[in-house]
Amino acid sequence: MKYVFTHLLGTFAIDEKVEKAVLLKGEDENTTKKLLPLPQEKKRTVLLLLKKKEYYSELSSRNLPLTREAIRNAVSNDSLIIQTISSIGELDQVCNLLSKRLREWWGLCLPELSEHITNHEHFAELITSKTKKELQTEFSITATMGADLEHYHLDEMIRLAKQIQQLYKLRQNQDFYLQKVMHEHCPNLLELAGATIGARLLELGKGLKHLATLPASTIQLLGAEKALFRHIKTGARAPKYGVLFQHPLVQNASKDQKGKAARLLADKLSLCARLDYFKGEFKAPEYKKEVEGKIK
Amino acid sequence: MKYVFTHLLGTFAIDEKVEKAVLLKGEDENTTKKLLPLPQEKKRTVLLLLKKKEYYSELSSRNLPLTREAIRNAVSNDSLIIQTISSIGELDQVCNLLSKRLREWWGLCLPELSEHITNHEHFAELITSKTKKELQTEFSITATMGADLEHYHLDEMIRLAKQIQQLYKLRQNQDFYLQKVMHEHCPNLLELAGATIGARLLELGKGLKHLATLPASTIQLLGAEKALFRHIKTGARAPKYGVLFQHPLVQNASKDQKGKAARLLADKLSLCARLDYFKGEFKAPEYKKEVEGKIK
Repeated sequence: MKYVFTHLLGTFAIDEKVEKAVLLKGEDENTTKKLLPLPQEKKRTVLLLLKKKEYYSELSSRNLPLTREAIRNAVSNDSLIIQTISSIGELDQVCNLLSKRLREWWGLCLPELSEHITNHEHFAELITSKTKKELQTEFSITATMGADLEHYHLDEMIRLAKQIQQLYKLRQNQDFYLQKVMHEHCPNLLELAGATIGARLLELGKGLKHLATLPASTIQLLGAEKALFRHIKTGARAPKYGVLFQHPLVQNASKDQKGKAARLLADKLSLCARLDYFKGEFKAPEYKKEVEGKIK
Repeated sequence: MKYVFTHLLGTFAIDEKVEKAVLLKGEDENTTKKLLPLPQEKKRTVLLLLKKKEYYSELSSRNLPLTREAIRNAVSNDSLIIQTISSIGELDQVCNLLSKRLREWWGLCLPELSEHITNHEHFAELITSKTKKELQTEFSITATMGADLEHYHLDEMIRLAKQIQQLYKLRQNQDFYLQKVMHEHCPNLLELAGATIGARLLELGKGLKHLATLPASTIQLLGAEKALFRHIKTGARAPKYGVLFQHPLVQNASKDQKGKAARLLADKLSLCARLDYFKGEFKAPEYKKEVEGKIK
């Protein structure tokens, strides 16, 4: 064995006469160091060699466990956070869809209730916990436009309402879990951005590592890609914020200060992402005060 | 009181000199019969009279309870069936969405399982009932690409899987309920079309009454409106079936017989809808045999 050759598929040790190639484990630095790098002119020969059936099958069989391990190791807290925030988003969607159906369905027997209660979760809770008569008394609905349905019809609606309640509970649980994971993985980001926005930033920024390398101006516009490309293409107004729009500091800023708030926030968030990635100190509360002070 | 005048808003009794209008209850046929219909030349005067504030407010206050009752009475089994089938459709959508998320999420710890199990419900059941190790043994997955996650990460996925199982159960429950309601309301339609397609026909046909008035050719194309209008507009091929495409008789017919099967089926379904609306006999099994015979 004399030469070392690193290739998309792995690191290989190649014997002097370029007749045999052996796959090395990528991490095995000691072996690698002892070998000479493959000269440019021999690369072609080696690549042709690897096309041969015998080498290819050996390569493949040695490569498989390495790849498997690489994939195993690629599962990080990032992936868990991204799955959780996607799941929360989907649960929101599901809760809304089913709640709207419940309101329409329940409208057949007591349509007036829907006007009184705007919160979907509360609506589902009322239907599961109270009878139609109790609801009529509580909200003083004397003459209802709804029909008197037999109880087995109502049961079906109540069953749906119970399911909706559980979905809301599940969503809340996932929220707690998200906070827990983020508390370990990226405490600064969690503190300054909050769980939902922080996780969305991780998702859009393709993980903490990549997020930490992004400039603040990119972080400011994460989630506003559509508007940004429209701006670039058609010259429409440039977006000021993406997911950061939901942040309380941006929400509470006056209309002409929103852009500034988003810029300051993105600035500090990029610092937070770097602190978290390099396991730095917990500085987010300081940053938060600073941004709050500047906006006022 | 001398004249009777029926108007969009209700039936009115009008005194001889057309000075006073009193709203009659629509059903009060005896009173109505005693009165003369309002002569054509006086209609204008009466309509102008109803514009006056005093009459208008009286009209409005008397009209309100009548309208309310009309709405109450409008709630029929049709509305319940339509709500249920819509809800079932939405639950299908929700189950698919959340199941896909579960597969992706669970893929972080045991990605190989997803290939082995194609059924979403079964997948969720396996995750709730077995540990990762048990699953690996059962499906002989020796070297997994998934990471070893701590148990509190897995708990979150299992919670989602449990929820999905319950959603599937709810969907099944609603299916039973739908069959029960349809069994009372439209037994012929239920027998020949099945619960899902029958309910979809009721939804698309805007209730049993309207469905009973539709010609068979319209019933054949319910659910294919988009293709039908494309055919009319651009001269593309005419659709052969709408929701009936899902019916086992159409599904099992050979490709060039599908159109014929849908036509025969629609023919009998329109008869079923009429039988059900006018509370006729239970003839669906006969029809079914007839259609089956003709297709063979």
